[in-house]
Amino acid sequence: MTDYPFGLLRGKRVLITGGLGFIGSNLARRLVHLGAEVLAVDSLIPEYGGNLFNIAGIEDRVTVNVSDVRDEYSLSHLVRERDYLFNLAGQTSHLDSMHDPFTDLEINCRAQLSILEVCRRCNPAVKIVFTSTRQVYGRPDYLPVDEQHLLRPVDVNGINKMAGEWYHILYNNVHGLRAAALRLTNTIGPRMRVKDARQTFLGVWIRDLLQGREVEVWGGDQLRDFNYVDDAVDALLLAALSDDASGRVFNLGGDSVISLKDLAALLVEIHGHGRIAVRDFPDERRRIDIGDYYADASLIGRVLGWAPRVPLREGLSRTLAFYRDHLQHYL
Amino acid sequence: MTDYPFGLLRGKRVLITGGLGFIGSNLARRLVHLGAEVLAVDSLIPEYGGNLFNIAGIEDRVTVNVSDVRDEYSLSHLVRERDYLFNLAGQTSHLDSMHDPFTDLEINCRAQLSILEVCRRCNPAVKIVFTSTRQVYGRPDYLPVDEQHLLRPVDVNGINKMAGEWYHILYNNVHGLRAAALRLTNTIGPRMRVKDARQTFLGVWIRDLLQGREVEVWGGDQLRDFNYVDDAVDALLLAALSDDASGRVFNLGGDSVISLKDLAALLVEIHGHGRIAVRDFPDERRRIDIGDYYADASLIGRVLGWAPRVPLREGLSRTLAFYRDHLQHYL
Repeated sequence: MTDYPFGLLRGKRVLITGGLGFIGSNLARRLVHLGAEVLAVDSLIPEYGGNLFNIAGIEDRVTVNVSDVRDEYSLSHLVRERDYLFNLAGQTSHLDSMHDPFTDLEINCRAQLSILEVCRRCNPAVKIVFTSTRQVYGRPDYLPVDEQHLLRPVDVNGINKMAGEWYHILYNNVHGLRAAALRLTNTIGPRMRVKDARQTFLGVWIRDLLQGREVEVWGGDQLRDFNYVDDAVDALLLAALSDDASGRVFNLGGDSVISLKDLAALLVEIHGHGRIAVRDFPDERRRIDIGDYYADASLIGRVLGWAPRVPLREGLSRTLAFYRDHLQHYL
Repeated sequence: MTDYPFGLLRGKRVLITGGLGFIGSNLARRLVHLGAEVLAVDSLIPEYGGNLFNIAGIEDRVTVNVSDVRDEYSLSHLVRERDYLFNLAGQTSHLDSMHDPFTDLEINCRAQLSILEVCRRCNPAVKIVFTSTRQVYGRPDYLPVDEQHLLRPVDVNGINKMAGEWYHILYNNVHGLRAAALRLTNTIGPRMRVKDARQTFLGVWIRDLLQGREVEVWGGDQLRDFNYVDDAVDALLLAALSDDASGRVFNLGGDSVISLKDLAALLVEIHGHGRIAVRDFPDERRRIDIGDYYADASLIGRVLGWAPRVPLREGLSRTLAFYRDHLQHYL
């Protein structure tokens, strides 16, 4: 296993939108550890992933700015003199995007354009890494899904993330910014939202398991792949550091594929006890379900040398351990 | 040549957004001729395609409502009790979309979502046909481009049209509306904008030719296909009438392929005289140019029985004849 060249980030000035969220805060922690100067911007909207506890222990080494990516005045100040922008802020709930499509549009689509315009005006030298999602593919035609698969999103969130992703590529290609996009698959780990299923269903499973409630699995036969958050952070940093990433879109993907039923069983096994109930999909979820999905992540392997390093069982085990200690901060 | 079943449109109540524009007004004229009841909505924004002269001769058989598709209150009134909505209003200039990306977003992306929400609330039974564009494909990987080609738009307009198109498909699939989208290639004919290149470069060529100025060709080797507007109108009507079109996206395409240089020469030949100057692309246009493009339109042929019927030479000839008589109304 080769080492990633993350020592290069020492002393770099980094801005993370969504920096108090699940992935953003894990990224902030890593960057602080690497000696970077981190500014975390987060709206702390209660329905989203931001949580001040996510930076517990590094509070004095991260600058926090509470503001919304829809606020371009705030951003035009914050992006100045930054070497890297990790653009992670987003509305993540597929269901919320169907009930309130305009909010999803404002955050995942319009604000992305405005962030890029701000960078063009105020800091054209910044390198940008955007987190997109497997949701842009919709229901796969074939598996594993590679970057040549058509984009046919099945919910408003997927459409707006698709537009947000392409604004990044466009500003790279036409306006001379440097931007890369990663299409994340299901990401798990400490600091994910467990209060509800807005970010990931697995958070709710872990909460219910730890609280002695039944783990409720919808459907159950759907195949999925997972990345432990540290692996996703590796990919974000590699994309930031490599010129070969600019203007490109890469899938992330897990090292194995598992059905949701088997995943629930694995979680119960690791925890030592627990009950699982397999139920039919609620109707409004079934209508936007994508069936089986897992990614072909070989492109980012070839171009950036990334591969997931934390096996699923290990990732689940670390995640459970974290919430055993800290669940009260996430309820 | 089989006849299309357009007699079915007699007495139908039709709403056309962009109804005073190039394609919208040609569609309105056809529908009036077929005995439909036509409501044309248009913002008449000077930079866009709307022109009251476009309905000269049918003024008393079309209801005109001047309003903007960004105005959802107006639309929630206008969509009621309509059998068909031809959703044609859009910002069409690729270059303007790069200079003012937010206006393009508001019209081509946000307003589309709002039109669909309005239909869902106020008239879920309406059948919607949306005009998308070849621009969503970006620079082709292969030719002719079919609907399996990846969408990789190279300008803001292409990204927002892509989102607007997918909102239509989504609302069809999830919310039970019926909507189809057509990806138009270059469309030519009477009533196109000739004042500038915001809608099509060919309008400017025709204006310059008729005014005795040099026809300025940028690049010149790019291959393109063209549809005469009556053929595009046929496709819109077929998509409206067929249940097989719902939830689907179809390319339109011409019956032949021609380089821009040869097209200019053909135009001069039909006109009888004229001068052509081939020039390098202006820099800001080159950066968003898509190179060669022509469509594979066989899918809509198989599913809806559409084919272009007006050959390029004939279409150019009719278009020139129209502007010889009416140029003053378009300057």
